[in-house]
Amino acid sequence: MPPATAVLQLHPDRLLPADPEVRAIARRLHASVADLPVVSPHGHVPAAWLADDTPFVDPTSLLVTPDHYVNRLLHAHGVELSALGVGQGPLEEEQSRAAFRTVCAHWDVFRGTPVRYWFESQLADIFGVEVRPSAATADAVYDQVAACLVRPEFRPRALHDRFGITVLATTDDPCDDLAAHRRLTDDPSWTGRVVPTFRPDRYLEAAGPTWNADLDRLAAVSGVDTGDYAGFIEALEDRRRHFRAHGAVSTDHSHPDVRTDVLEPAEAARLFTLGRRGEITAEEATALRRHLLAEMARMSVEDGLVMTLHPGIRRNHHTPTFERYGADVGSDIPVALELTDALRPLLSRYGTAAGFHLVLFTVDETVFSREIAPLAGFYPSVFAGAPWWFLDAPEAIRRYRGAVTESAGFAKTSGFIDDTRAFCSIPARHDMSRRLDAGYLAGLVAEHRLDEDEALETAHDLVVTIPERTFKL
Amino acid sequence: MPPATAVLQLHPDRLLPADPEVRAIARRLHASVADLPVVSPHGHVPAAWLADDTPFVDPTSLLVTPDHYVNRLLHAHGVELSALGVGQGPLEEEQSRAAFRTVCAHWDVFRGTPVRYWFESQLADIFGVEVRPSAATADAVYDQVAACLVRPEFRPRALHDRFGITVLATTDDPCDDLAAHRRLTDDPSWTGRVVPTFRPDRYLEAAGPTWNADLDRLAAVSGVDTGDYAGFIEALEDRRRHFRAHGAVSTDHSHPDVRTDVLEPAEAARLFTLGRRGEITAEEATALRRHLLAEMARMSVEDGLVMTLHPGIRRNHHTPTFERYGADVGSDIPVALELTDALRPLLSRYGTAAGFHLVLFTVDETVFSREIAPLAGFYPSVFAGAPWWFLDAPEAIRRYRGAVTESAGFAKTSGFIDDTRAFCSIPARHDMSRRLDAGYLAGLVAEHRLDEDEALETAHDLVVTIPERTFKL
Amino acid sequence: MPPATAVLQLHPDRLLPADPEVRAIARRLHASVADLPVVSPHGHVPAAWLADDTPFVDPTSLLVTPDHYVNRLLHAHGVELSALGVGQGPLEEEQSRAAFRTVCAHWDVFRGTPVRYWFESQLADIFGVEVRPSAATADAVYDQVAACLVRPEFRPRALHDRFGITVLATTDDPCDDLAAHRRLTDDPSWTGRVVPTFRPDRYLEAAGPTWNADLDRLAAVSGVDTGDYAGFIEALEDRRRHFRAHGAVSTDHSHPDVRTDVLEPAEAARLFTLGRRGEITAEEATALRRHLLAEMARMSVEDGLVMTLHPGIRRNHHTPTFERYGADVGSDIPVALELTDALRPLLSRYGTAAGFHLVLFTVDETVFSREIAPLAGFYPSVFAGAPWWFLDAPEAIRRYRGAVTESAGFAKTSGFIDDTRAFCSIPARHDMSRRLDAGYLAGLVAEHRLDEDEALETAHDLVVTIPERTFKL
Repeated sequence: MPPATAVLQLHPDRLLPADPEVRAIARRLHASVADLPVVSPHGHVPAAWLADDTPFVDPTSLLVTPDHYVNRLLHAHGVELSALGVGQGPLEEEQSRAAFRTVCAHWDVFRGTPVRYWFESQLADIFGVEVRPSAATADAVYDQVAACLVRPEFRPRALHDRFGITVLATTDDPCDDLAAHRRLTDDPSWTGRVVPTFRPDRYLEAAGPTWNADLDRLAAVSGVDTGDYAGFIEALEDRRRHFRAHGAVSTDHSHPDVRTDVLEPAEAARLFTLGRRGEITAEEATALRRHLLAEMARMSVEDGLVMTLHPGIRRNHHTPTFERYGADVGSDIPVALELTDALRPLLSRYGTAAGFHLVLFTVDETVFSREIAPLAGFYPSVFAGAPWWFLDAPEAIRRYRGAVTESAGFAKTSGFIDDTRAFCSIPARHDMSRRLDAGYLAGLVAEHRLDEDEALETAHDLVVTIPERTFKL
Repeated sequence: MPPATAVLQLHPDRLLPADPEVRAIARRLHASVADLPVVSPHGHVPAAWLADDTPFVDPTSLLVTPDHYVNRLLHAHGVELSALGVGQGPLEEEQSRAAFRTVCAHWDVFRGTPVRYWFESQLADIFGVEVRPSAATADAVYDQVAACLVRPEFRPRALHDRFGITVLATTDDPCDDLAAHRRLTDDPSWTGRVVPTFRPDRYLEAAGPTWNADLDRLAAVSGVDTGDYAGFIEALEDRRRHFRAHGAVSTDHSHPDVRTDVLEPAEAARLFTLGRRGEITAEEATALRRHLLAEMARMSVEDGLVMTLHPGIRRNHHTPTFERYGADVGSDIPVALELTDALRPLLSRYGTAAGFHLVLFTVDETVFSREIAPLAGFYPSVFAGAPWWFLDAPEAIRRYRGAVTESAGFAKTSGFIDDTRAFCSIPARHDMSRRLDAGYLAGLVAEHRLDEDEALETAHDLVVTIPERTFKL
Repeated sequence: MPPATAVLQLHPDRLLPADPEVRAIARRLHASVADLPVVSPHGHVPAAWLADDTPFVDPTSLLVTPDHYVNRLLHAHGVELSALGVGQGPLEEEQSRAAFRTVCAHWDVFRGTPVRYWFESQLADIFGVEVRPSAATADAVYDQVAACLVRPEFRPRALHDRFGITVLATTDDPCDDLAAHRRLTDDPSWTGRVVPTFRPDRYLEAAGPTWNADLDRLAAVSGVDTGDYAGFIEALEDRRRHFRAHGAVSTDHSHPDVRTDVLEPAEAARLFTLGRRGEITAEEATALRRHLLAEMARMSVEDGLVMTLHPGIRRNHHTPTFERYGADVGSDIPVALELTDALRPLLSRYGTAAGFHLVLFTVDETVFSREIAPLAGFYPSVFAGAPWWFLDAPEAIRRYRGAVTESAGFAKTSGFIDDTRAFCSIPARHDMSRRLDAGYLAGLVAEHRLDEDEALETAHDLVVTIPERTFKL
């Protein structure tokens, strides 16, 4: 029988391999990188949190409501998203507490998931919780977190410093004025580095419901007429300049596929005009998007922004949930991905262009050994992106290293990205990655495939050199 | 050199992880569930065996002839299926003994396969065999099994009780009168539970060679005219009522794909009429089947029968074998599967319907982490089916837990199903699953990702709570 | 800090499982096969090297320039292929040394790859190098290898004997006169066995740029008019006879897909004629190739040559590299593969034909458990080819055994093939395979799924019996 109140304690050897000899090596490797700063080159924390340093309001709206990793599995167990605060606006104390109770009462459904690992890490490491969440302990845990949140050392900037974050990337609309980023760089008391990321997805989808309005807004913020194709391209280039001026190092793209086909300029202009008239078909819009994605590569070759791809997700799979709660609430489902043929036109043009960086992420693991590692193992521009979203999990990360390393080595991988909007989970996510890499490297050492001095160097590279090089930091 | 007569002995630690510390944990976990009853919510044992309690005739027709897992690999080594009794009707003693000798003489070809594991478990545990099968020992093994089979404690009901089976599901044609099931429930001396499963595949394939005859039979047994679409639907609903009245808890479906597309009623009726006239094209029949599969979901929402899908198999891949021996003799080969888009229409309609259960099985492992776990981790209705057929094997089961758990946890998996027509293999199959789950959970404990009290609870849930909940037992 | 000059030493337990108990078993298994001869039934070493026994010229043109496994990853790190000697013709001493320095200076990028494992094995085992390659040690390593190459015991035949090679297959154009093979068999001082392999890819692709010229050459060497379809088939059969007369045991095929469709003779003839007129479309050429691939199976049934398939590679993915350096320089990238439907026509015709052997290789690992193992586990003719190219690597090989064994056992796998043009890597590649199989078998023993006497027998079979049986040696 489980004890009524089980202890929550983070074991120093957590996630390290079970074999005693391998674990001993892994411990040494992890210890060598455990305290290094956090470089987070791709994520979704709002810059305004740090610019304004507004205290977090309550445990639920910090740890639960915005985190679809947490909510989706509760939904799968019959919990309404509204009961977790989703789509409810600011929460009343009782709503917040009730949602938190629901999470804790379902603690068992998270067994074996990284969500539970991250959540427990946050509770223990950041908020000093010492009991395992459960229906019985929910209120005590809630109270402890709430009591922390009113203290100054739990405000965003204090946590940012405590987490040891030296670079934090946000994800932003091309029309964003990046005022929060500007406020941070203009603030002499701020010593961190928060960089925007150019995410133009909707501007490349000419059949999207908001496309024409988006392009009008793009014209307004750039001061460039987007009435014709040349103006549209110029406006995008203008916004990329704006982003670079505010510290951006990369662009991010997520479309149903990553097919690239370079069109003749006249054909691209023709399709663009159809789109502006609202007369473009879905097929034509896809052709235009595939051309524009190659254009994004062309711009990256010219302006140096790293291009990252996060494809292969069917967004808002459950239409009623989307209609009620909007996007990003947990009903996105992966599909199979094809990269070899899809990226061939882009790579034949730009694959060996000086300074071009293309980071390939996937939630379809089958492409790791079949396509991504072979591509990253030949093209100087291609990097194998770290396991992302559903794959940012201990065993998936091990499979990733197992699938990618033998063809691409370590040095053509991207380094870890947390891709999170759950600010407080950032240290646990990066530490998880370091532990797993230490374990993987320890396995190589134990099997005499790598000397320990090299493993130590590689562990360090994976945390410092490799993300800095990939993202040109 | 191997000893002339090697010993057959089931090691108490078989299938548990090799690392001593992890094995010790796994032993404790396995011990806690090893003696729990067997719940078998999906399989192919005929109900008549238990209703009639007829003694099994001979070792070959019990253990070899009906088991395509055994026969296919022997066929791959050049053994004719006829030499194993397939398609031969009742076997003469010499035929039976010769077939058994062939199996034993090829014992080495089964090394590393679960077939060998199950077969040896049966020989040792049920029939007390203590020598490893080989050409030299074949007759002795045969004689020992044959000597058992004439004893009353080896009749079907006695074995059923000895195996500790509390629920056993059969798989049945919608027109089946379920008389054997009825005889069992009407028999006061019978204390088990044998439930039918509604398997309407052929009734949904309007271009199938027997479809019109099947629908005529359906009309006859249901008393509902199947001359038009409405009558057909009503007849299916009638048979589902009949199945539920005989204890059915689920329906099962196996088609080339799981695409669902809801047609307008008039269009469905039009296609149905074409089918009844024998004028439907293959393409139209596929459209109708995809609609009917969604109809099956609609009926499940209404009548509560759990819907299970077993797709992605190209049946009877080798035409000459099919022509000579018929179906289910080992020449079915898997193909790649797509679920995310295919099930979207069904799930957008019924994915959050109260009480709806949809269990997704696959023999294409790539969908476990990419599609099934994300679907089961969002939709309350979706459950990740246990590894099935070619994947019901130690390393495939480990890969399954590794691929599914991190996105869907344990509690959105189906629990083990044996899916077997090899009655005597049932205990070994369930025990194999328990051992592997114990090993997987022990790994989580050893890596400090789960406390042992939780692992114990989860091991129990996987054997008891989870299958009962998934299949509404 | 790594020592300035790290030691290079091959640990006797390299690649064996880390767990002490499993490793002890693996050691025994490996020891039992470590010194067995090397059977290499598929590869790319030129027969002329052995026929002529010309000394190797310099370290780079032996170990670097021809090995796209080495070069591709350096290219991915920004090294021009020309700087590694690719496309440069015979190298000057300074070019050779500079290229070798580049390799050594990038030694860290190979960490975790099999390329590094093989390269280090060669340096240590064959050339006696005792320092880890690096910028600092590059010249010393180069000098040591160069000093070896001038000695008689490092000429091709001496190395061939030292490597213990008893069978070595080359890969050859159907028009090749096989003079080098003939010189070897005619040489009384030569005791080895070098067999050609019939590789007709380009002759089956009627839309290929050289097809008509190839067929003219085929007519010239065979003395059969290839102006019509019947003559073409007869000419191919003639060349197969020629190959068999020179010791060939197999044919090899690598096309974009493995679809087979048997055409009516008249239709095949019609497409052939279009091709001969230069009027065939890409689609028609594909239809003809799919027919011709089935014809190759028909010929194999008749003449007994083992048919091996190496599909699923997009050749020369980076067009500019192909235009500058030609084929086989490292820019081939895998794509997803489908076998179940593609091979059905072929297998329904020839799948159970007496003596027919079809070996299926893949660089898309998803087909191992889904398609290849089920096919090899039913069809007597089908063998699961060893992991190849990107998958000929420790963890991929483990995944292969894990994916294939449970459905096909060991005895329906092909045995190891090295598929290499890197002559000196052959012993290390075969030893790697033996170590990994020993480790896999040791895991089965440690989990009590196999007795050790059986594991010993299986380890031996995998090295001796199985490749000899698969390739009819």
